[in-house]
Amino acid sequence: MKRNAIFYHAGCPVCVAAEQQVAAALDPQRYAVEIVHLGEQKGRVAEAEAAGVKSVPALLLDGAAFHINFGAPLSALK
Amino acid sequence: MKRNAIFYHAGCPVCVAAEQQVAAALDPQRYAVEIVHLGEQKGRVAEAEAAGVKSVPALLLDGAAFHINFGAPLSALK
Repeated sequence: MKRNAIFYHAGCPVCVAAEQQVAAALDPQRYAVEIVHLGEQKGRVAEAEAAGVKSVPALLLDGAAFHINFGAPLSALK
Repeated sequence: MKRNAIFYHAGCPVCVAAEQQVAAALDPQRYAVEIVHLGEQKGRVAEAEAAGVKSVPALLLDGAAFHINFGAPLSALK
C-alpha cells in the first residue's frame, strides 16, 4: 500500500520550485503525494500546524514535517 | 539516464531524519542519490557552497539546493 505524503504550499516561487523538483521527485511506487495550497484551502492550515508545519513549502512524510527552503510562515496564511 | 541528486548532511539528528525519510523517498528509477557527509568529507564543503547550500541537511536536485529543516550552518563544517 502506498504511503501518504502531503506537500503544503502557498503558491510562492519558492513553493513552486520545491513542488516541481522535490515533491515531483518522490517515488510514485511508494508515495501517493497530495498537493495542498494553503492559501486556497485555509481550512487545512490547522491540520498542517498540528502536524508540525511552521512554514511553507513543507513536505509531510509519514507524519514528520520537513520544511524545504523558506517561502512563507504558516502564520501568514491564517 | 538517471539524474544525480546529492544529499549533504553532517550526521546530526535532523540530518539523519531527513536522509531516512526525504532522501530515501526519492524515486530510484529517476534519481541516483549520493549521500555526502560533509563532516567527514570536508573537501566537498566548497562544492556544496558553490551549489548554493547554506546549511545541512540539504538536497541538491538538478543543480538546485533545497534545505530541509535545519541542522547546522555550512560555516560550522569548514
